[in-house]
Amino acid sequence: MSAAHGSGAHADAAEAGGIQSVDVAIVGGGISGLVAGRKLARAGKSVLVLEANDRTGGRVQNGTVGGAVCELGGEWVTSFQPNVQSLIKEFGLNTFDTYTTGKSTCVYDGKVTRFEATNLPLPAADLIEIAATIVLFDLMASAVPVDAPWTAPEAKAWDSQTLASWLEDNILTAGGCATLDLISGGPLCAAPRDLSLLHFLFLVASTGGAERFGSIKGGVLESRVEGGSGLIVEKLTKELGDRVQLNAPVRVIDQTGPKVRLTTDRGVVSADRVVVAIPPTLAGRIQYDPPLPTARDQLTQRAPMGWAVKCFATYPTPFWRDAGLNGFVTNLTPGAMIEGVFDNSPPSGSPGMLYGLMEGDGARAWGSRPADERKAAMLEAYASFLGPEALTPTDYLEQDWAATPWSRGGASIAFGPGTWTEYGPALRDPVDRIHWTGTETATEHWGSMDGAISAAERAVSEVLV
Amino acid sequence: MSAAHGSGAHADAAEAGGIQSVDVAIVGGGISGLVAGRKLARAGKSVLVLEANDRTGGRVQNGTVGGAVCELGGEWVTSFQPNVQSLIKEFGLNTFDTYTTGKSTCVYDGKVTRFEATNLPLPAADLIEIAATIVLFDLMASAVPVDAPWTAPEAKAWDSQTLASWLEDNILTAGGCATLDLISGGPLCAAPRDLSLLHFLFLVASTGGAERFGSIKGGVLESRVEGGSGLIVEKLTKELGDRVQLNAPVRVIDQTGPKVRLTTDRGVVSADRVVVAIPPTLAGRIQYDPPLPTARDQLTQRAPMGWAVKCFATYPTPFWRDAGLNGFVTNLTPGAMIEGVFDNSPPSGSPGMLYGLMEGDGARAWGSRPADERKAAMLEAYASFLGPEALTPTDYLEQDWAATPWSRGGASIAFGPGTWTEYGPALRDPVDRIHWTGTETATEHWGSMDGAISAAERAVSEVLV
Repeated sequence: MSAAHGSGAHADAAEAGGIQSVDVAIVGGGISGLVAGRKLARAGKSVLVLEANDRTGGRVQNGTVGGAVCELGGEWVTSFQPNVQSLIKEFGLNTFDTYTTGKSTCVYDGKVTRFEATNLPLPAADLIEIAATIVLFDLMASAVPVDAPWTAPEAKAWDSQTLASWLEDNILTAGGCATLDLISGGPLCAAPRDLSLLHFLFLVASTGGAERFGSIKGGVLESRVEGGSGLIVEKLTKELGDRVQLNAPVRVIDQTGPKVRLTTDRGVVSADRVVVAIPPTLAGRIQYDPPLPTARDQLTQRAPMGWAVKCFATYPTPFWRDAGLNGFVTNLTPGAMIEGVFDNSPPSGSPGMLYGLMEGDGARAWGSRPADERKAAMLEAYASFLGPEALTPTDYLEQDWAATPWSRGGASIAFGPGTWTEYGPALRDPVDRIHWTGTETATEHWGSMDGAISAAERAVSEVLV
Repeated sequence: MSAAHGSGAHADAAEAGGIQSVDVAIVGGGISGLVAGRKLARAGKSVLVLEANDRTGGRVQNGTVGGAVCELGGEWVTSFQPNVQSLIKEFGLNTFDTYTTGKSTCVYDGKVTRFEATNLPLPAADLIEIAATIVLFDLMASAVPVDAPWTAPEAKAWDSQTLASWLEDNILTAGGCATLDLISGGPLCAAPRDLSLLHFLFLVASTGGAERFGSIKGGVLESRVEGGSGLIVEKLTKELGDRVQLNAPVRVIDQTGPKVRLTTDRGVVSADRVVVAIPPTLAGRIQYDPPLPTARDQLTQRAPMGWAVKCFATYPTPFWRDAGLNGFVTNLTPGAMIEGVFDNSPPSGSPGMLYGLMEGDGARAWGSRPADERKAAMLEAYASFLGPEALTPTDYLEQDWAATPWSRGGASIAFGPGTWTEYGPALRDPVDRIHWTGTETATEHWGSMDGAISAAERAVSEVLV
């Protein structure tokens, strides 16, 4: 999976005086960087993927809990994400539907309620308002070009307010507020106050409709990869072979010479082109020579990552299923530690696995507390939602993406007001011989694995021009 | 002013095996870092100020235009800023009042108007609304504790919306909108859409009243230092002597050992404590081992610098004075290239010097255009405001702080919604042996030279405990 320092990269890569020379150096071995590397290699370019971690995958990573595979980062894939589906197919992987048999659970106003329909157990007025607002979001989003949100007719007005302000001004029912707060802030692991309304509408447009955010069937929670999404990373990494260099954080990108020179912790790499495949905020921590153009530098100052902690607990069996529950919990309690719980068991159903997502305000409130306190509170929450069996897991595992070096947040970035309209073009505009990718530069399915792939293909097309 | 690499720092600093050892290493030689270094040295500590640039001062720097001194960065000082006044007095420097004799100029609705009173030439209703809103801002700000804005009773609501949203919801008159937009966004060189309402109210509280923002007499534009504010930097730097190391950007701060180890471009420094005296966004670009606590790291992702370009033009005489004008221009045109012009002549009045400030949206629109195009437009603007003589300066000089390496923005940072309430304590909380200073950590006169000084004194008091 890795190349020892000093081993030659494929194709015309060569080492001379400790400097590895390639056609294209790729900064970051997440899915976007790996896909870019693979595509460039297939096009005959010598490439080297420089990964800071001791593993590839970025925010996509398989883990183990209770003897089973779990997905520490991105996990869901959907039928309407063509790029990730195509990769899954190519690699001979299988997907399976999110478990939905039985009743869902809603926590609202201090009460735990079970429900069967797709509608939450809320008063009719609240449900009508939620449905109408989702239609309105879609309508507003239809005016936001996904490749240039700053050109939307209402861009300036929508980018001058937070999503929280919009909800405050427009939503009347308490259940509507709580639900829209959750589904609107959730996808980014941020709170509605963190988001520009324009950024949220861009996300709606990019995802293909607001209904998809909180939905399982036909939504972003639709299905998963058997064996974990980490298998996609593994296959990509394997194909790249010793074109991947681990433990090689890039510190300096120097474009002052005839070749671009990258200084890493494992030596210097010389390249004709560079593809930077890490989130903008992390890309801003690299030193550039010459310094980045102002708009690009200032963009990296305004592209904060959300805060997401995934919490897994395993049980001998998925006990909630026996009680007629599908394990899916929507927690509408404002400022809750945990906003959603999902049945994350493997297709076999053994072990039973729950995954709870702490995100945004919940993660900020709980992410820095002692681990045992957090674990106890999380299991208490699982128990109050799904039954006392939840208190005695066979195993428990947390992954805090905001605490993880070389990620420092997740699921993705949340643009606040003023960023898209004032700095939007700098997200993708190449800087001399540097090209930018990563799911944060995608137009379709922004923030997902699918977006990471399409973004890579766009960046590669710039390099190959 | 600088120490050659390898020369020993004062006191018990010693060099062994290329490692300089001091009690306290200070990252950044702006006013805050210099004041911290001086105070620690006077307390008997060996210190080393590590400055990335080839000069000290950060965003305070003297320059030369038309043969005269100009202040490329921070320039105004006021009678109500005790810390900077005390330093000025100690150094035997003199201040002089901003020139106010004659009429001021207002640009509004396409018209250039002269006026004498402190009130802008706007309809009475607009003036009443502006005055009432300033009172309201002060009242709201009185509920914001400057040392903990996140504890204000309305903190969550105020930190969920932009200042632009608040203005949109509350201001009726066109002149009121334009004026409040200008004075509220101006101090940070950002636009009201970039700011959390809570951050703005904190700034009002920290400055001692909203009236002060756009005001000369009794306001933040009150007076200046004879010979330039750069003299303060010069005196501080001289006192520190070879305790200042230039061209020494700090790349890594390693707290894993018994001593803190700082890796700079000019060698390794070992210290018991570290004072980081650079803006949070730049501090986030240093590598920390162990990695920063999540809240601190995520704060650095959400502390964007504004965009400010200072444009100076000199003339044989301050010709506008002969026309009965004081050179002070308030441009209320939305999205204008330039929002304010000031008579920046030295006390002698020779040469005549105009200083125009491009900031926020104006800077974003114009900052990246070709220099000659920008200069021509700027001189055209000066001429349209103050007379055709402005078209033929004897010299012209620009300083773009957002383009300046090791600053990448100015005047200061603009917190968007959600930052104070979710990450506020991380602004000042020490991280093991690292203490944070810089004007962005001040409680009083945040963002000014005075704030840089008081913040340094607070950081030093933490170190000396």
